[in-house]
Amino acid sequence: MNSFDIQAWSSRQLMSVEQSLMQWVPADAPAGLGEAMRYAVLDGGKRLRPLLVLASMQACAGDQLTAPMSEAGMRAACAVELIHAYSLVHDDMPCMDNDVLRRGKPTVHVKYGQAGALLAGDALQSLAFELLTPQDSAIPAQVQARLCGLLAHGAGHAGMAGGQAIDLASVGIQLSIAQLRQMHRCKTGALLETSVLMGAQAAQASMQATNALLSYGQALGIAFQVVDDILDVTADTSTLGKTAGKDAENNKPTYVSFLGLDGARKEAAALAAQAQQALADSALLQTQALQGLADWVLQRQH
Amino acid sequence: MNSFDIQAWSSRQLMSVEQSLMQWVPADAPAGLGEAMRYAVLDGGKRLRPLLVLASMQACAGDQLTAPMSEAGMRAACAVELIHAYSLVHDDMPCMDNDVLRRGKPTVHVKYGQAGALLAGDALQSLAFELLTPQDSAIPAQVQARLCGLLAHGAGHAGMAGGQAIDLASVGIQLSIAQLRQMHRCKTGALLETSVLMGAQAAQASMQATNALLSYGQALGIAFQVVDDILDVTADTSTLGKTAGKDAENNKPTYVSFLGLDGARKEAAALAAQAQQALADSALLQTQALQGLADWVLQRQH
Repeated sequence: MNSFDIQAWSSRQLMSVEQSLMQWVPADAPAGLGEAMRYAVLDGGKRLRPLLVLASMQACAGDQLTAPMSEAGMRAACAVELIHAYSLVHDDMPCMDNDVLRRGKPTVHVKYGQAGALLAGDALQSLAFELLTPQDSAIPAQVQARLCGLLAHGAGHAGMAGGQAIDLASVGIQLSIAQLRQMHRCKTGALLETSVLMGAQAAQASMQATNALLSYGQALGIAFQVVDDILDVTADTSTLGKTAGKDAENNKPTYVSFLGLDGARKEAAALAAQAQQALADSALLQTQALQGLADWVLQRQH
Repeated sequence: MNSFDIQAWSSRQLMSVEQSLMQWVPADAPAGLGEAMRYAVLDGGKRLRPLLVLASMQACAGDQLTAPMSEAGMRAACAVELIHAYSLVHDDMPCMDNDVLRRGKPTVHVKYGQAGALLAGDALQSLAFELLTPQDSAIPAQVQARLCGLLAHGAGHAGMAGGQAIDLASVGIQLSIAQLRQMHRCKTGALLETSVLMGAQAAQASMQATNALLSYGQALGIAFQVVDDILDVTADTSTLGKTAGKDAENNKPTYVSFLGLDGARKEAAALAAQAQQALADSALLQTQALQGLADWVLQRQH
């Protein structure tokens, strides 16, 4: 019997994540910049990426979790969330998706102007790398350097930013489902994969453990996006906290437009099962949180 | 007699910098992203920041320059230039300075659209940190981590992005000259300071050498901005390669508006002398390149 309570586990982790973000995202950055940065990051979001970092770290470290590992894990968790938050800020801007609602609140550019949003996003990206490189910390330099390398790669041209570029170029164009998968592997998948890899790195995991987590993260990343496409069709704006039906309105290719609603649901379930299988096949000991997060990705309503 | 030829030195360094940027800024990033990134970075710019990195590294290492130091220095030189390039791309966008000309060419958003420019800038920032963390390299992890930390701090809310925020908030507002200095210390100065500190870190310099370079970099950073303000008044657009007279047109406070043209020239000369003095007071052995760069900053025509 599995007595693991994913809700309770998530709540505990998120309390620490929120406290850390409160502490690390500066209130006193000049000329309103700090205020816009905090608005973009605090008090909202599902925090899936930080949870993946922490669940992966715990899965790798098990009972051997040390204080430097915990610190590295929390910094990695917050750093990846800052990258995610900056990408949302920029993605919502008028020249991109032109969205006015995010996490149930006006988007950053609506509240702070476009220039304010542009700068807040830029500064959030820098801050992510600053968080990963504390000078007076017990985190080994090797871990700091690898965390920076993983995050830079996942966020950059070969990862998230590259996926955004494909997305941008694909509006109104007929993509194949292979191209759609490639786009999402970059746009959403890369940062989810990066999250589990950063968790493994924080725990200084073996190559074997890291590879198992990578398989998990890759399947989960696509599953997440398939569910996103489903929810864009089936959920309403107030539940989503962002504007529903945007994909169809923008004539964007989605898994639903390719596979139909039923087909997309089957695809999501198959991918989530694949993620679970990667855990089952691994030598990782404490995988309940990772299992719970994969369940959540499949069943989420927003 | 000083037989050091700063022109020849700069040309040699820049040949390596350009080759490295050609190699490291990807041509094959998806959906035109790589093309926009390369357009923003290659074939243009004064490359002052990379030259400062390399001159500082050489001043600290002297005859003890090793291959890992050289590699760290070149990666740092290119990384700081990528941050500078991204900041120009975003700064030129319509919601910021709305400029159409940069380095004598159409700005990135004019050529690739606003969304393309936004993404290219974002991806350039990520790439900077990717360059600093090569996994298979001889650069010590400690150096990689510190280079990331320095760059993140210099680029972020307490540095360049913070300065941009002050700049943005200051249009049409009466700043004191102390506030103007604070703005420029962040906006331009932070990344110039960061350049000399990264050079010192690449060479694993002593605290003493690093502090001397910091004094030099601080004075040079303000001098650079004072000269920028002078050139905005005295130079024409074709010489500058960017639109002249923008500051007055935008009613921006400048050193010239505070001190007058003559006063600003005296200020620039005093700051450049201060930078030279920091070198003279230091125990650094090979300071000719740094001296030459300070001369150039004072005398530059564009």
